[in-house]
Amino acid sequence: MSDATASLSRYWLRDNCPCTECRNPRNGQKLFQVTELPEELAIAATTELHGHLEVLWNDGHRSRYPLPWLAAGKTAEAENAAENAAVNGNEDEDDRRTEAGKRRWQAADFAAGLPEANWAQYLAEPAERAAVLRAVLRLGFAVLREVPTTPRQVLDVVASFGHPRVTNYGELFDVRVEPDPNNLAFTSAAIAPHTDNPYRDPVPTLQVLHCLENAAVGGDSGLVDGFRAAELLREQAPEEFAVLTRTLVPFVFRDRATELRADRPLIELDPLGRIREVRLNNRSIGRLHLPAAELDAFYAAYRTFAAITLRPELRLEFRLGAGDCLIFDNTRLLHARTAFEPGDTAQHREGRGGRHLQGCYADLDSLASTLAVLERRAAALDELQRLFEGEGAAEYLGEQVTQAEHMLQAAALAQRDGAPDHLVAAALLHDVGHFTGALTGRQLMLGQDNHHSEAGADWLAQWFGPEVTEPVRLHVAAKRYLCSVEPAYREQLSEASAYTLRVQGGPLDAEQAAAFAELPGATDAVAVRRWDDRAKAADADTPPFEHFRELLAALMAR
Amino acid sequence: MSDATASLSRYWLRDNCPCTECRNPRNGQKLFQVTELPEELAIAATTELHGHLEVLWNDGHRSRYPLPWLAAGKTAEAENAAENAAVNGNEDEDDRRTEAGKRRWQAADFAAGLPEANWAQYLAEPAERAAVLRAVLRLGFAVLREVPTTPRQVLDVVASFGHPRVTNYGELFDVRVEPDPNNLAFTSAAIAPHTDNPYRDPVPTLQVLHCLENAAVGGDSGLVDGFRAAELLREQAPEEFAVLTRTLVPFVFRDRATELRADRPLIELDPLGRIREVRLNNRSIGRLHLPAAELDAFYAAYRTFAAITLRPELRLEFRLGAGDCLIFDNTRLLHARTAFEPGDTAQHREGRGGRHLQGCYADLDSLASTLAVLERRAAALDELQRLFEGEGAAEYLGEQVTQAEHMLQAAALAQRDGAPDHLVAAALLHDVGHFTGALTGRQLMLGQDNHHSEAGADWLAQWFGPEVTEPVRLHVAAKRYLCSVEPAYREQLSEASAYTLRVQGGPLDAEQAAAFAELPGATDAVAVRRWDDRAKAADADTPPFEHFRELLAALMAR
Repeated sequence: MSDATASLSRYWLRDNCPCTECRNPRNGQKLFQVTELPEELAIAATTELHGHLEVLWNDGHRSRYPLPWLAAGKTAEAENAAENAAVNGNEDEDDRRTEAGKRRWQAADFAAGLPEANWAQYLAEPAERAAVLRAVLRLGFAVLREVPTTPRQVLDVVASFGHPRVTNYGELFDVRVEPDPNNLAFTSAAIAPHTDNPYRDPVPTLQVLHCLENAAVGGDSGLVDGFRAAELLREQAPEEFAVLTRTLVPFVFRDRATELRADRPLIELDPLGRIREVRLNNRSIGRLHLPAAELDAFYAAYRTFAAITLRPELRLEFRLGAGDCLIFDNTRLLHARTAFEPGDTAQHREGRGGRHLQGCYADLDSLASTLAVLERRAAALDELQRLFEGEGAAEYLGEQVTQAEHMLQAAALAQRDGAPDHLVAAALLHDVGHFTGALTGRQLMLGQDNHHSEAGADWLAQWFGPEVTEPVRLHVAAKRYLCSVEPAYREQLSEASAYTLRVQGGPLDAEQAAAFAELPGATDAVAVRRWDDRAKAADADTPPFEHFRELLAALMAR
Repeated sequence: MSDATASLSRYWLRDNCPCTECRNPRNGQKLFQVTELPEELAIAATTELHGHLEVLWNDGHRSRYPLPWLAAGKTAEAENAAENAAVNGNEDEDDRRTEAGKRRWQAADFAAGLPEANWAQYLAEPAERAAVLRAVLRLGFAVLREVPTTPRQVLDVVASFGHPRVTNYGELFDVRVEPDPNNLAFTSAAIAPHTDNPYRDPVPTLQVLHCLENAAVGGDSGLVDGFRAAELLREQAPEEFAVLTRTLVPFVFRDRATELRADRPLIELDPLGRIREVRLNNRSIGRLHLPAAELDAFYAAYRTFAAITLRPELRLEFRLGAGDCLIFDNTRLLHARTAFEPGDTAQHREGRGGRHLQGCYADLDSLASTLAVLERRAAALDELQRLFEGEGAAEYLGEQVTQAEHMLQAAALAQRDGAPDHLVAAALLHDVGHFTGALTGRQLMLGQDNHHSEAGADWLAQWFGPEVTEPVRLHVAAKRYLCSVEPAYREQLSEASAYTLRVQGGPLDAEQAAAFAELPGATDAVAVRRWDDRAKAADADTPPFEHFRELLAALMAR
């Protein structure tokens, strides 16, 4: 066993084999069962090659691990920390839903303003949207401003990061004074800091409240960081904290069509003992069935915790006005409101003097996914920019222009010809496989086909749809096709292109050409090919990569 | 302090005060904060009255507790156990989501057949529906047969007990061979027992799979009780079990639009150490970051657990045919399928030789609520039947007929007059408040208004909508109204009715009568009143209570 693997767990290593037999290359899902591995798994031999470690296992399987990936515990842990740091700013945390993945706060931390964004900007700018979603994950909330005060608009807000969680209150619910309320929320009474729906399991992990109108006197909003409150309880009264983490509290809600019950602790810990969820809702705590001494201990701890959540320094107070939309983590933040003057019914009917929010529940997992995808796309654009400015600017594959200039020119030509955005992008990115494949463009020029169209298309498929990737995939075949069907085309190929044509297999024969013409992306690929061929002028118009960045971002989100 | 309260926890007792100042009578939600109770809460005095204990607290508040409710720890625990037994068959369990609320099984337990029901019967018969939902909660699954093989029908199945949980796979997903699958499910490969979406948090707690077609060779279904498997692991290798409960496993799923990750243990315990959730999905376990020794311990335990889930005696095998719909608990049951011959694409297009399921995720909480409501309704019908056959059959409030005969006659008259169902029900139930209120009909006959119309309507509102309760509420007012506007009406009142008219306040004056006529339910209440007045014949047609049971059940579900 080599030094590189001596300190590694064998089953772990094998379970992470990245080969296409073990793992679906498209989504990374494993294709074998852990039970299918030999009882006595061992490493028979290892070789280092091309920056990879090749491992031969005692069952004959071969795995290839990139060396940086492999560089064992320390590096792996560091990578993991870096990944998390991107979302959490926390360096030693894996489960982002616990206290370790959160920035705990008190009211004064927002003296300079709330985490907020303008709705139009949030929609238009991925970075702005990412900042809002990151605030919800790290701080527990964010506010969108100038959201149109159209009824049901709250569903559009939810659709921007996830899916509504439908409950007995409906897909969305109206928070306003109701004549026959089945919940205190639908009155004008003050409501102390609480989490919603504790009687649901799974509890809705997000809540979105969109203010359509707030002309009431009173009716201000309050937020308390429940993790911070729990942390204070742990510092101040560790035994009471422990009582609340182990006492199952029956949360109940009942009306004619509903009878919900969940037995959960007020403070839920993860298996490592970290605060992971808070449920606090005085209204819906049912009858506990415990010996009197345990009831006394629970009620003492519960009262201490509830009192902490009422500390003025913990309570962030603000007012939601028409068009404001509050998104918050319902497993962590407690929300509250002050009492208000409801106005009379006539006023309500005319839309004057009332307070009307529309609410919707949703879940943190989709929101975190949306954020991760936004971050991945931003990282991909940065990486593309680095390729264009780094390797791409240095490579001259036998032409008068660098690779980067060549691709930028192709895209500029496409744009000048009025091509749709996805073909501009395909023209821009058609040769990206020279840098992302296992073999580089230099190796192509040395006579070994690097299959850069395939490699590029596969790499791009992480972010772009087939309308971009398929013309890239077929742009070499398009050259071979055109050489076959247009004798004049072959004549005008650059010297380098004529050379690589041979490495790539030469012109298609008649049957191959007919098959190519049948492919769904053939026309697009031929179009890209023609811009490709024209984009080799030393003195041509060459816009910078930034010029295309927004277009690429929009295509990624399509 | 009285003996009755000496052994009780004071804050617990006060927190459960049932008075309308402390609790919304409609939904039982509390109207005060636990922090608002005095620091030194104490009982100043207690009195027993009318089967209740009245407690005077040191802050001046008075609470009245029914004695049976109060009879302290033992009774309370017994009641709780009885409540749970109704759902679980388990006597000492509160949280129904843990192993203690489940009947664990192995394949042989279903030698006599699966828990199943015919779709039409499931829809038509509340008891059949309750049995199916109870099976899902206790056993983890049930099968519906003869569900129409219409696309999207699975959403109707979900709507019968809850709401779909939308995921990245959509509101529903098609399980069939896809040309470019982003998940192994969408191929024809065998899939080992697993839970779905472990990378979601909250994980969808229910899955519904509706078979539209299964003409494939192979493609059989398998289910394994994951709680049973975990229990076996605990018996066989307690240390490995412990490792799986405390190791956070990164479950990941990634495609172009999605990047989900949840860090959760394979076996999740509740705060009391009971098995509560199982997540097992080899395909989506990402790279763990732990010291090598911990990785070795995890992989050893994981392999042992996975091997247990493959034991043939644990695996229930069956075949879903067209029209079958499987509902199962995704936090507990592992599902699997055998490989199948996919057939060619042309066959698929023609709907021959293929396998096509439509799936949808949903949640256990709504399903449990639906079951609880069905059980509550059945219990209410039983209670009504007992009232009609017990107290109702014994009471003669100055008439020639018993109370039960009187109400049955009123309903029969309504039915003969072609009244809509809700008025037949209102006629049947109009005097139920004589038995359910604080004061009985006997007290009314002794000259004390028992406000039985109010008491009855409030009691009925637990199950029936206003179309039933409001005519009941107004039927005494309708008598006073008719006496005011129809002099002949007063003449024909029975002697007892004329007597109670005086106790109830006499005829309405002109202004009151005009106001009554304006009420939304006035016409219905007058109609009920007229059947009421005619339903006092010793020899009249008197159907039994069962005659109306189905009609009542349908109105409850409206």
